[in-house]
Amino acid sequence: MSRQTLIGKSLPRPDAKAKVTGGAQYTDDIHLPGMLHGALLRSPVAHARIASIDIDRARALPGVKCVITGNDVPAVRYGNWRLVPELQDETALAVDKVRFIGDEVAAVAAVDADTAREALELIDVEYEELPAVFGIEEALAEGAPHLHDAHTDNISLTRNIDYGELDRAFEEAFHIQEDVFTTHPVNHAYMEPCSALARAESDGRITIWTSTQTPYYIQCLLARTMELRENDVRVIKPHVGGGFGGKMELRPWDFCAAWMAREIGRPVKFTLDRTEELATGRRRHAVKISSRIAFQEDGTITGKEVRAWLNGGAYNGMGPTATFLIGNFGAMLYRIPAYRYRGLYIYTNTPPAGAMRGFGAPQALYAGETQMSQAAAALGLDPIELRLKNSMTEGDEIPGVATVGSCGLKECLEEVRRISGWNEKRATLGRGHGIGVACYSFISGGVFNWFNTKYPFSSAEVRVFDDGTAQLSTLAADIGQGSDLILPQILAEELGLRMDDIRLVTGDTAACPQSDLGTWGSRVTLMAGNAVRRAAKEVKERLFEMVSLKFDLNVIHELECGDGHIYAKNKPKRRIPFGEVVAMAQRANRGEPIKATGYYTPRDCGLVSPAFSFGAQVAETRVDLDTGKVEVEQMYTVHDCGVELNPMAVEGQLEGSIQMSLGYALSETLVMQEGRTLNTTFLDYKIPVAADMPPSISKTVETFEPAGPFGAKEAGEGLACPTAPAVVDAVYDATGYCCNDLPITPEKILGHLGA
Amino acid sequence: MSRQTLIGKSLPRPDAKAKVTGGAQYTDDIHLPGMLHGALLRSPVAHARIASIDIDRARALPGVKCVITGNDVPAVRYGNWRLVPELQDETALAVDKVRFIGDEVAAVAAVDADTAREALELIDVEYEELPAVFGIEEALAEGAPHLHDAHTDNISLTRNIDYGELDRAFEEAFHIQEDVFTTHPVNHAYMEPCSALARAESDGRITIWTSTQTPYYIQCLLARTMELRENDVRVIKPHVGGGFGGKMELRPWDFCAAWMAREIGRPVKFTLDRTEELATGRRRHAVKISSRIAFQEDGTITGKEVRAWLNGGAYNGMGPTATFLIGNFGAMLYRIPAYRYRGLYIYTNTPPAGAMRGFGAPQALYAGETQMSQAAAALGLDPIELRLKNSMTEGDEIPGVATVGSCGLKECLEEVRRISGWNEKRATLGRGHGIGVACYSFISGGVFNWFNTKYPFSSAEVRVFDDGTAQLSTLAADIGQGSDLILPQILAEELGLRMDDIRLVTGDTAACPQSDLGTWGSRVTLMAGNAVRRAAKEVKERLFEMVSLKFDLNVIHELECGDGHIYAKNKPKRRIPFGEVVAMAQRANRGEPIKATGYYTPRDCGLVSPAFSFGAQVAETRVDLDTGKVEVEQMYTVHDCGVELNPMAVEGQLEGSIQMSLGYALSETLVMQEGRTLNTTFLDYKIPVAADMPPSISKTVETFEPAGPFGAKEAGEGLACPTAPAVVDAVYDATGYCCNDLPITPEKILGHLGA
Repeated sequence: MSRQTLIGKSLPRPDAKAKVTGGAQYTDDIHLPGMLHGALLRSPVAHARIASIDIDRARALPGVKCVITGNDVPAVRYGNWRLVPELQDETALAVDKVRFIGDEVAAVAAVDADTAREALELIDVEYEELPAVFGIEEALAEGAPHLHDAHTDNISLTRNIDYGELDRAFEEAFHIQEDVFTTHPVNHAYMEPCSALARAESDGRITIWTSTQTPYYIQCLLARTMELRENDVRVIKPHVGGGFGGKMELRPWDFCAAWMAREIGRPVKFTLDRTEELATGRRRHAVKISSRIAFQEDGTITGKEVRAWLNGGAYNGMGPTATFLIGNFGAMLYRIPAYRYRGLYIYTNTPPAGAMRGFGAPQALYAGETQMSQAAAALGLDPIELRLKNSMTEGDEIPGVATVGSCGLKECLEEVRRISGWNEKRATLGRGHGIGVACYSFISGGVFNWFNTKYPFSSAEVRVFDDGTAQLSTLAADIGQGSDLILPQILAEELGLRMDDIRLVTGDTAACPQSDLGTWGSRVTLMAGNAVRRAAKEVKERLFEMVSLKFDLNVIHELECGDGHIYAKNKPKRRIPFGEVVAMAQRANRGEPIKATGYYTPRDCGLVSPAFSFGAQVAETRVDLDTGKVEVEQMYTVHDCGVELNPMAVEGQLEGSIQMSLGYALSETLVMQEGRTLNTTFLDYKIPVAADMPPSISKTVETFEPAGPFGAKEAGEGLACPTAPAVVDAVYDATGYCCNDLPITPEKILGHLGA
Repeated sequence: MSRQTLIGKSLPRPDAKAKVTGGAQYTDDIHLPGMLHGALLRSPVAHARIASIDIDRARALPGVKCVITGNDVPAVRYGNWRLVPELQDETALAVDKVRFIGDEVAAVAAVDADTAREALELIDVEYEELPAVFGIEEALAEGAPHLHDAHTDNISLTRNIDYGELDRAFEEAFHIQEDVFTTHPVNHAYMEPCSALARAESDGRITIWTSTQTPYYIQCLLARTMELRENDVRVIKPHVGGGFGGKMELRPWDFCAAWMAREIGRPVKFTLDRTEELATGRRRHAVKISSRIAFQEDGTITGKEVRAWLNGGAYNGMGPTATFLIGNFGAMLYRIPAYRYRGLYIYTNTPPAGAMRGFGAPQALYAGETQMSQAAAALGLDPIELRLKNSMTEGDEIPGVATVGSCGLKECLEEVRRISGWNEKRATLGRGHGIGVACYSFISGGVFNWFNTKYPFSSAEVRVFDDGTAQLSTLAADIGQGSDLILPQILAEELGLRMDDIRLVTGDTAACPQSDLGTWGSRVTLMAGNAVRRAAKEVKERLFEMVSLKFDLNVIHELECGDGHIYAKNKPKRRIPFGEVVAMAQRANRGEPIKATGYYTPRDCGLVSPAFSFGAQVAETRVDLDTGKVEVEQMYTVHDCGVELNPMAVEGQLEGSIQMSLGYALSETLVMQEGRTLNTTFLDYKIPVAADMPPSISKTVETFEPAGPFGAKEAGEGLACPTAPAVVDAVYDATGYCCNDLPITPEKILGHLGA
C-alpha cells in the first residue's frame, strides 16, 4: 500500500472563498451592542513640550462619551523588548512631550465616528515647540536636541559584532570593495488598516478584537499598560488583512479602546484610515550602511566590515531587533572568515520605524548584494561565479551564532543562471537592456527571547474525534500568509486525514493553548508546525495502542496513519478507520476524550534561528534611455525553502514578495519634509498593482531542513530581499549606473546618463 | 491561620451588571456582515397531508435569498432520545404531513425580517385535512386517527414500575386515598425568545450561535440532520435569557439557519416572537394522574399506585423522560414499601410538550402532595404529622433505582411547621383564610444516559497562571441559573483564590473541553462542580510539589491553598503566593503551562440521580368568598439543598420558583381550542409579576451531600414543585375546596362555594 501524502500538494486556502466573497470578518466588521467609535488626536508638531491640554469643550460635545489624555491613564512605558526594559520607551498617549508629527495625544469615544472626529477639533492643546532632528546626521550632530531624557544623545542602542582577524584581511586584500548605501522609509501598505475593538466584560476581564500578528504580545502588553494581569485580558484576532511586521506591537488604539471601554462600560472601536497609516504608521527603517569587503585575487572573501545607522524615529518599538538583524544579514550568504559590525539605532523626530517583511535583511542584502556585483565587476569576474565561489553550504558555522542545517544556495545560483540564460545575456543585451542577480538568506523564526516569554515559543492542542476528524487549536496567527492552511495540512499529514477532516480554532488567547509568539520572522511554519507534529505524535501513540491491541501485533511492528486509517506499516491490511480507533481509545479511556498539547521551543540551535532559507533571483530590465523609466521584463527565482509543503502557498509568497520589492526598488517611498510625511494616500504613495507585475518564473531547489516540519523552512520573507539588488544590478548592466541610494528613480538614472 | 472560605458566601453574579445595563449580548444581539433574516411558515391546521407546496412566488420576491421546505432537505428524524432511535420522530420541516397548528412547513431567508415574513404569505401550501385528536381520551379512543405511521395507535411509550406486594397493601389498608388529577399546559415564558444565528465557515464548518441550554446536544443533532460530522459543527451559546427546559432540544430554526447559511453562503438568523413561543412552543405536559395510596390506621403508607397519561402533543421531543420521572416522583418523599406505576405517553394534534422546570415532578408532586393532605383529613391526622411519619431519611433505598445519600426532609417539615406557626393556624384561621403544606424532592442531575453520550457527563479544564489567576473552561451552560457564578466559586475555593482571580471560558463547543450534557435536571452544580474540583486537584498536586520542594517538607505534610497562597497546612508560615508557585512549576516544566482537565460521570449511583434535594413549603392564603380570588399572603420554605454554596443564588432560585409556581397554580394556562392556542400574548397569558409576589420566608436545613461538591445538591428545580399543592391545600383549609384540576380559578372556587 502506498500511503498518500499531503506534503508537496498545492492545496487551496480554506479562507480564500470567504475573502473573495466579502464574507470574512475583519475587526472593523464587528459591531457590538452599544458600541462607540474612537478617534485619536495626533501631534501636529514634530517635537514639543505639552504645556496644557483642555478637553472640556470636546467632552461637552453631544454624543461624546469619553475623552482621555496621557494625564488620565497610567504612564506605563511599553514595547516588545521586555527583556531590556530600558528599550521600552513608549506610552499609549503622550506624557509631557510629543516627539513626532502624529504622536498620539488624546483619544475620544463617541456614538459615531463623525462625532469622535469632530470632538478632536475641540481639544485644545498648547504645544511649546522644541528643536527637532529628522535625519541620521542631524540626530548625531554635536549639540543636537535629544528626544528622550533617559539618554544624553539620540543613540538608543548599539550593536557590535567582531570575529576573525579583520584588520589583517583588509591589509592583505587584493581588492577592497567599499560603498555607502542609503535606503528609504516605506510603508507596509497592508490592505486592512489597523483596527481594535474592546469590551469590558462584567467580570472585569477585557476582551479585545484587534488586527494583530501577535495576540500574545497584545495580551501581555495591554495588561501591563492597564495595570491588569495577563489573564485579565483576552485577545481575539479576527481575519487580518496583512501585517508584514506592522501589526506586531501594542498600539495606542488597542490601549485606548480597552481603557475607555472599561471606563464607560460600552464597547469601543478604533479603525485607522489610510492617511493615518501612511502618515504616522510604522515603516521600514531608513538605513545608512557603509560596507567594505576584502577579496583575494580569485574572488575569495576574506573579511567584511559593515557599519549601519538606522533611523528609528521617535520610539524604539521593535526597532532594536533590526539593528541586530542587519548585523546578522551582513554576514550571511557567504563564507566570511572575519567580520566586524557596528550598528547604531538612532532616535529622530519622525514616525517610529518598525518591523517590515525581512526586517533588516532587505537593507543589509541590498547593500551586500549590490556590493557583490560591483566587486565582481572590479575583479573582472562574473557576478554569479563570484557568489558561487563564496557560497555558504550545509554545515557552515556562523561563528558563535548558528550552524546552517541545510543550504541550497549554490544549487539555486546554478539553476537561476541556467533558467535565466544568464551566460548568454549578462553584459551582452545592449545598452538599455540588462540582467542582474542577487541572493538572499533568511531565518525561520528567531531564537533570541527578546520578548522574555515564559511560555513555549509555539503550542498546539490536538483533539481527535470518533467522527474521523480532528481539531487543531493554536494561537499561531494567520495574517494572510496562510498558516491556517499549512498547520492543518501538517496535522492532516501526521494523522493521515484529509484537509476537511481538520477543524481549526485559532486567534483567541482564551481558547488556544499558551502560547505562541505570533507571526514574524517567518517562524510559524517551523515552530508552530513542530508543535502541531508533537501534539499529533502524542495522540497517535494512544491510538496506536488500540490497533496493536486489536490485531495482537508483534511488539516490533510500526504503526502508521494514512488514508483515513491506522494500520500496521508492514501489514497494511491490518487497519482500522481513524474514527473507529478514536472511539476505541475513548471507550478504553472511560469516555474521556483523546487530546494532547504539543510544544516547541528552539533550544541548542544558536542565537539566531533554527534554520535558514536561501535563494537566488535574476531580474531582466529594460531602461528607457530618454525617460529613465525602468521596466522589469522578467523575474527568475530559484529558492531553497527546504521541502515545499504547499507549492501554491510558496508561489503566493514569491509573487507577493516580488510585487512588494519592486515597489521598494522603484516606486515606493514616504516623502518626508521636516518630519512630515507628504504622500499620505495611495494616489501619491505608489505601490505596484497587478498590471505592474512582470512575468515570473520560479523553481525550487529542494533541500531537507532537519529542524523543520517535514523538512520545511521559511518561504515568505527572505524572498522579499533579492528583488531590489537584482534590479539595481540589472539597471547597472543596462546603463552602467549602480544605484546606491534606493529607490531607483528615473531622475537618478537620467542624472547618471547625463553625466 | 484560619483559611478563608468562599463556600456559603453570598457572592454576586459576574453577569449581573451586564444584564441590568443591557450590555449582555444575547443571540439576537449578534449581527454579522451580510446576515439574512429567517422566518418560518407554520401549519394553520392541526392534522393534514401536504398535497403540494409551491415556493416560486416566495422565491421571486425581491430580497428573498432562500426558501426551503421538507422536500429540500434530508428527512432526518431527530430527538434527544438517541438511546432509543424509535423515539426520534421529528423532522426539521414537515415531510408529507403536518401534525399540529404551528408545525414548521417551510423557511425563508431574506435581507430583512419584514421581507422574510412577507415571503411566507407567498408560499402556497395545499393541505388535505385529516381528522385530529386533541385530548388524552380522544387520542386513546377506539378508531381514533393516529398521528405517526410508526405506531398503530397514539401511544408513543409506556413505562411500568412494579415493586413490593401492592395488592396485599391495598387489601389490608385501613384507608385508601384515591383521586384523579389533571394538570394544564403552561409555557416557560423565558424572557428571551428562541434565537439562532448560523454561519457557514469557508472551511465547511458550521458555526451556530443559539439560545440553548445544551450546546453539546445541538452540536450532535444539528450535525446529524445536516448529514455532517459532529466536529463540523461549532455551537456557541451567548448569554441566554432563561430556558427552564424549553431550550434543550435541536429546533427547526437551528437547522434552517444552518442549512440556509450553507446553501447561500451568508449568515442567517432566526428569532421567534412571543406569539410563536406561546402558540407553538414547547410546554409543560398536561397530565392526567390517577393515584391511590394505602394507609394503615396510624397513617403509615403501605402502598401506592399511580397511573399517568401524558398529553405529549405531536412529537416526542424530550417527553418520554417525563413519563419516567412522573413514575419516579410518584414514589419519592415517603417510604413506600410497594409501588406500581403505569405511565403512557400519548400523541395528540397539539404543540409538542417538553421539559419544563421539574419535568414531571410538578405534576407528580401536585397529585401526591394533595393526596397526602386529603388523606390526613380522612385519617384525622395533621398533614405535617402524616408526612413526618412517612418521611424518607438518609440511607433509604428507592428499590432498584437509587439510595438517598442525604435527606433533611423531616427537619424541613419540623422547621417549616415552627416558622409558619402551623400548629396555631391550620384549621383555625377561619373561613376564607387558610394554610397549606407540601413537600418536594428533586434530582441533582440524571444518571440514565438517554442521549447516549460517549463523553463524560461533565468536563472542566483549569489553567493556572503566574499572575495568580486561573482560567476555567467548561461547556456547562449558564442560562440564567448562575453556573457562571457557582463553578468559578468552586474553583476559587479549591485554589484558595478570589473570585476575580478566576476567568471563565464557556459556551463554545470548540473552545471548551468535551463535553457537558448541558443545563437540565439540576445537574450542573453537582456534575460540572465535581469536574471542576477534579481538574483543580490535579493542578494543585503539581503546585504542591513546588512548595514541598522549596521548604523541604516532611513527606507527611499536607499542603493547602488559601488566601492566595499555597502553604503547609500545619506550618502555615511556610507559604508561597499562588502565582509564584505557578511560575516555579512552569519553570520546572520547561515553560509548558500548568493545566488539567477534570471529568465527572455518575457511576455506581443507581439509575436516577447521584443525589436528591428535599424541602417543605407552607402557603398562607386568603380567599375572597365573593369573587373566588385567591391571594397568597405568605410563603414559608425550608429546604435541604445540602451545603448552600451561595445562599443568595439559592434565594434567587427560591423566589423564582415561587413566582413561576404561583403562575402554575393560579393564573397561567394555555387555553386550547381544537388544537389552537388562544392566548398568545402576555396580555392574555398571565404570569405573576413582581407586584404579585407574596412575602417569603425561607430557611435552610443543611445536610452534607457526599456526592456533591462541598456537600451541595440541587436548589433550583425541586423548589418549583411544592407551591401549587401547598396553595391547593391552603385553599382547601380556607374553603374546603380541594382543587384536583389545576389551575385553581375563581370560577372553580365559586362553583364549589355555590354547591
